Amino acid sequence: MSLVVAKFGGSSVATPERVKNIAHLLVERKSQGDDVVAVVSAMGSTTDNLIDLAKAVNAHPSGREMDNLMSTGELVSMSVLALAIEQLGEKAMGMNGRQVGIITNDDFGNAQIKEIHTDRIHEALKEGYIVIVAGFQGIDEDGDITTLGRGGSDTTAVAIAASLGADVCEIYTDVDGVYSADPRVVGKAQKLDRISYEEMLELAAAGSGVLHKRCVEFARNFDVKIHTRSSFENVPGTIVEDMIDVEKAIVSGVAYDNSEAKFTLRGVEDTQGVAAKVFNELAKRKISVDMIIQNISENGFTDISFTSPTSELENVKKILEELLTKLSARSYQINDNISKISIVGAGMKANSGVAAKMFQTLADEGINISMISTSDIRTSVVIDQTQFKHATQCLHTAFGLDGTEIFEDNTLSEQELKDKANKGR
Amino acid sequence: MSLVVAKFGGSSVATPERVKNIAHLLVERKSQGDDVVAVVSAMGSTTDNLIDLAKAVNAHPSGREMDNLMSTGELVSMSVLALAIEQLGEKAMGMNGRQVGIITNDDFGNAQIKEIHTDRIHEALKEGYIVIVAGFQGIDEDGDITTLGRGGSDTTAVAIAASLGADVCEIYTDVDGVYSADPRVVGKAQKLDRISYEEMLELAAAGSGVLHKRCVEFARNFDVKIHTRSSFENVPGTIVEDMIDVEKAIVSGVAYDNSEAKFTLRGVEDTQGVAAKVFNELAKRKISVDMIIQNISENGFTDISFTSPTSELENVKKILEELLTKLSARSYQINDNISKISIVGAGMKANSGVAAKMFQTLADEGINISMISTSDIRTSVVIDQTQFKHATQCLHTAFGLDGTEIFEDNTLSEQELKDKANKGR
Repeated sequence: MSLVVAKFGGSSVATPERVKNIAHLLVERKSQGDDVVAVVSAMGSTTDNLIDLAKAVNAHPSGREMDNLMSTGELVSMSVLALAIEQLGEKAMGMNGRQVGIITNDDFGNAQIKEIHTDRIHEALKEGYIVIVAGFQGIDEDGDITTLGRGGSDTTAVAIAASLGADVCEIYTDVDGVYSADPRVVGKAQKLDRISYEEMLELAAAGSGVLHKRCVEFARNFDVKIHTRSSFENVPGTIVEDMIDVEKAIVSGVAYDNSEAKFTLRGVEDTQGVAAKVFNELAKRKISVDMIIQNISENGFTDISFTSPTSELENVKKILEELLTKLSARSYQINDNISKISIVGAGMKANSGVAAKMFQTLADEGINISMISTSDIRTSVVIDQTQFKHATQCLHTAFGLDGTEIFEDNTLSEQELKDKANKGR
Repeated sequence: MSLVVAKFGGSSVATPERVKNIAHLLVERKSQGDDVVAVVSAMGSTTDNLIDLAKAVNAHPSGREMDNLMSTGELVSMSVLALAIEQLGEKAMGMNGRQVGIITNDDFGNAQIKEIHTDRIHEALKEGYIVIVAGFQGIDEDGDITTLGRGGSDTTAVAIAASLGADVCEIYTDVDGVYSADPRVVGKAQKLDRISYEEMLELAAAGSGVLHKRCVEFARNFDVKIHTRSSFENVPGTIVEDMIDVEKAIVSGVAYDNSEAKFTLRGVEDTQGVAAKVFNELAKRKISVDMIIQNISENGFTDISFTSPTSELENVKKILEELLTKLSARSYQINDNISKISIVGAGMKANSGVAAKMFQTLADEGINISMISTSDIRTSVVIDQTQFKHATQCLHTAFGLDGTEIFEDNTLSEQELKDKANKGR
């Protein structure tokens, strides 16, 4: 008998039929003797519909009232799943953020979990209930409802699993695990049986959308084993856990990210603190910056390049225009037709020459690199977006990741791939 | 400067445009110096959609989990109205049942308010917020969400007005007040400027749908002045209040109710306790009974007739079939083609002969009466439903209620009139 926390994403509970399937799955687990806590996202497009509703009455909906609104999506799916379980003759108890004891700070829209009081879940499990938790939300110290931002429901699940000391946190989605590359781009991508927290974090940061960075960090910090798997077929997925003693593949996966744009400020005087001015300005407006390059100075002038989400393009543009005057820079450039390609692998730490092999492979294929960044277990490059598929494929082959199964190339449009990169919570 | 509690029904907040209108109305009130608390129902058909969703996964959704689901409709409209007010530059604070301090018993789906702790509303008003309350809900002593059943949002509004000592509880709906009869049936119906709690209660019980019995009872018990008015035009509606010293019209209004059916158990042995057996059985299944008639015994046998909501027809039928055997009755009859016509007026107490005039008027028009019940200030009769319009009209004329304004006869279908009788919370 084990204690299982199972999280179901929006597509897994999108219709009453799917909710009924989840109910069967949970009742089955319960009948095998497990204690079961389910965490749910909002049904299907509910979240988008709520945002549309808010925008119909408020140009910039945000803050406490917006969080009140956004939290209702998960309350609905929580209740419907509980009712579906009751229909099967099992006891179910839905719990909102307050009932489940998730206390956050009051950063509405992107609240951080501070503590979890799981007494009520413990009690309900002891009384034989299947507990259904509304994901993505908590309350602050005033008792006001907060939401956790992107990846919120995953974070809820991992945080509850950590608090309860659950044996595993299962994350059910519409894909059946973590792949060595996006199967829609690399036909010979392989499902990974296991991956370390660190690799998963780098893959998430590199644009692989299966798990959010934040929930993986939480899992690593509290040593929660994650099993990410399909809610549509009963097959094993990918285990994410600490993998200290395992021999490591040099490269575990290749990821791409088409959601960023590259910004360059040209002809900036190369004096002390000039870079600080640029990035302070971006930080003040809460615009996240990924890669940064400052060119070697020439005649006392330099260029500064960075990447930020394409969704912030207009905001960054405004800042660059202000900086142009402030810093007496020559000009600025924006390129939203870029792709970030990353290779990730715990074995890179101990193996030099991996980055060099990556650059050589791309060069051999005639793919030009415009930016580079690295970490212990990741190397990322920025290339022209028209070449992202080819780059991902040839790196996948070069690092020996090709499997035998051949996925059909679904030839997703670039827009679809962008949407994929931008979706989800 | 006064303290106003304003309640908006589902049709008043059905679309973003209407929500924006309400926001303007509230901001206007606030700018006039009033403290404003708004109570909202769920937007338009939200409640029905939630019920459909529940029924798609559970044949008989009810209890704690159903209340969790049903409460979300009002949370959405609360948040959207708060966001619309923020867009106008005013401070707004949405409050759910817990935040507003409404403590109920745990009779899910039909919870009774036990106490209200308004500290947080007081504080928010003092800080200059327009407070928006999600109607229809509270929490029980375990912190579980409960809903208040039919007329719930009206009850929320009146209860909060009572707790706050508000100057008035304004109830905004899609009609502009209480009429001497349904204007869709009686062309010469008049809007009443004022009406007493008692008369309003009798009208509500008699099928007039403007205000629910429960909220009027609450208002009477706590002496809350209600102003029921239109959310679409800024004209005075009807004031419901204590009217001890006012000269009373003998009859204030005529109401009809097409939502009940008549059930008769024939040939029951007329022994002690036989009626008790019948109505105990109905009470056990929580089926409400309105009118009851037991015929004079003939040869030791009698007939028992009663009316109950048509929506319970199948359930009552089952009970009658059981009773047929238990009581060795001869047969049973069901007639769902009846109408209850009532005249209501505080002046009836002091004026004898009012009931007689009612019966005579109907007899003169060839309308047959099959059941009669009376109270201090109401007389009701059951007639054939095909005659309900004619009966309402001729009583309206006979008791001198006809006004000068002529409403068009909208000739609602019987189904529409039935729907009207069954709608709303």
